[in-house]
Amino acid sequence: MGVSLKDVAQRAGVSVKTVSNVVNDYPHVTPAMRARVQQAIDELGYRPNLTARHLRKGRTGIIALAVPELGNPYFAELASAVIDAAARHHYTVLLDHTAGMREKEMLVCQGFQTHVIDGLILSPIELENQDLHGRTDTSPLVLLGEREYDAPYDHIAIDNVAAARSAVRHLIAIGRQRIAFLGARAESARQPAHLRLRGWREELSAAGLPHDDSLVAPTDGYGRADGAQAMATLLDRGVRPDAVFAYNDLQAIGAMRVLGERGLRVPQDVAVVGFDDIEESRFGAITLTTVAPDKQAIARQAVNCVISRLTDSAEAEPRRLRPGHDLVVRESTLGRHQ
Amino acid sequence: MGVSLKDVAQRAGVSVKTVSNVVNDYPHVTPAMRARVQQAIDELGYRPNLTARHLRKGRTGIIALAVPELGNPYFAELASAVIDAAARHHYTVLLDHTAGMREKEMLVCQGFQTHVIDGLILSPIELENQDLHGRTDTSPLVLLGEREYDAPYDHIAIDNVAAARSAVRHLIAIGRQRIAFLGARAESARQPAHLRLRGWREELSAAGLPHDDSLVAPTDGYGRADGAQAMATLLDRGVRPDAVFAYNDLQAIGAMRVLGERGLRVPQDVAVVGFDDIEESRFGAITLTTVAPDKQAIARQAVNCVISRLTDSAEAEPRRLRPGHDLVVRESTLGRHQ
Repeated sequence: MGVSLKDVAQRAGVSVKTVSNVVNDYPHVTPAMRARVQQAIDELGYRPNLTARHLRKGRTGIIALAVPELGNPYFAELASAVIDAAARHHYTVLLDHTAGMREKEMLVCQGFQTHVIDGLILSPIELENQDLHGRTDTSPLVLLGEREYDAPYDHIAIDNVAAARSAVRHLIAIGRQRIAFLGARAESARQPAHLRLRGWREELSAAGLPHDDSLVAPTDGYGRADGAQAMATLLDRGVRPDAVFAYNDLQAIGAMRVLGERGLRVPQDVAVVGFDDIEESRFGAITLTTVAPDKQAIARQAVNCVISRLTDSAEAEPRRLRPGHDLVVRESTLGRHQ
Repeated sequence: MGVSLKDVAQRAGVSVKTVSNVVNDYPHVTPAMRARVQQAIDELGYRPNLTARHLRKGRTGIIALAVPELGNPYFAELASAVIDAAARHHYTVLLDHTAGMREKEMLVCQGFQTHVIDGLILSPIELENQDLHGRTDTSPLVLLGEREYDAPYDHIAIDNVAAARSAVRHLIAIGRQRIAFLGARAESARQPAHLRLRGWREELSAAGLPHDDSLVAPTDGYGRADGAQAMATLLDRGVRPDAVFAYNDLQAIGAMRVLGERGLRVPQDVAVVGFDDIEESRFGAITLTTVAPDKQAIARQAVNCVISRLTDSAEAEPRRLRPGHDLVVRESTLGRHQ
């Protein structure tokens, strides 16, 4: 027979009610009491019946997370962090990827598995304001990422303009003047790169450098092959940057591959900065300088937003949260430490 | 108002029953008829009510997938493939990661979110035979990966011994004789690398080469840092292989980073082969030769197994399926094409 609340209460020398308060994450339990009960829980191997607990509250204990692609390590790392953050609140995560397609994003947003989901965290690429305004599903929705919306939903994103400016500022500080931007889409209302592109422009202007649009290389997608192709196209056009700021690490890695193939040295001939700080960036032949968004904070805030909408703040004003970011400087701009 | 079955039937010029047969994936519909109905569905933007359809059959339309870690691109790529394969059968995927911990694997296996899950696909690391035999949950369970079990569940894995042998054979063919194996665990009953290690030994024997156990480098985990550390330890011990066969691509990539730091050239001084064919392997400064498991086939077979257990073959004998694999030869063994 399993361990009961009563067993835990006896072991901890407290009332069953106190154990219940701890297990259910209710407030008004002192940290000392919480630790004492937790110790008894751990010693006895007590497992609360989470399903029953969620069902009592009319919930399933499942949060959906929809990202553009799991094949992109940034989203895989973010998904890992969300799964862990959700687990700390006894939630599990239903994960889906949208391939960045508007139709799939709308489908997810309009009511993806509504019978089993308490809330949704969505990282959209193509979704429009009107799609969000047309949403009829009433479960909590939290938006992640660079797109800006005028819609009544919580939105979590780092300050992409400031982050891009810090990357460009670093390149200028090491003496670079012809800094290419890799990974813009063709200009449109749906320019996912617009904030990072704005940061690139603003920082060049602040330094008194021209922003030469021939240095902006559009890509069709967000992968290594897209970065490689954009870099090759730039070089084939005779454009010769002394630095590259890429929309993300994958594109930067693809670009570095092409620079190597063309006999250009990183960073001596071309310094490279990426964005995302995926683990891969730390282990290449040339480690990558990159903007590191605080993925743990993004995940934690996203889960907290969903849960607080489910509990005490369903009607609160939509929040705009800004997790932090760092510039992590590595060999692709500073060279290898000899 | 939405598009109905009747609208589709009128557009396609067929009966409502025929449209229903197509939408529900029933057999006995000719490909031509299926195409005709599908065209009408696409033109009208008809969306079948999948939830209702699953619920009519007493199902939720959700398959759980539990992998050791999403941060490992192999599992992220596999998860993508499973999500896509499931979507083709109108299933969505509840994804969880177990961190390769036995307790988490047991929890998942014993009845993870049973109220919302039709079946489970699990890639275990530490799970034991006895854990599987003790399983009381009756929903279909499909096992993935290298561990071998004597348990009544479908199991899908490539032929790891043959795959490892092909990697070692290639290294011998290019003249290497001191081939290190990176990524074994300390010897134990739970040696996840045992089949690849066996392939390494068998192929060396077949070539009349000794298998020098000082060339086997154990690691604590499966990541880039583990491969880097194992490579550094080997070199620090004065062991000087002319080739490395790594348990996976991540470890191979970590090892290549250390070889570069020590001034050893890949492949001239040390040739390197990995395992998994993650996309990262195609874009490093030195592209990686690797064993490529057919991830699409693994995903498709896993989803098919779950679904067929739910429908017509609940009582069939457990299956052992062997998806294919290839050796993909790149610069880390053949050098760069000049």
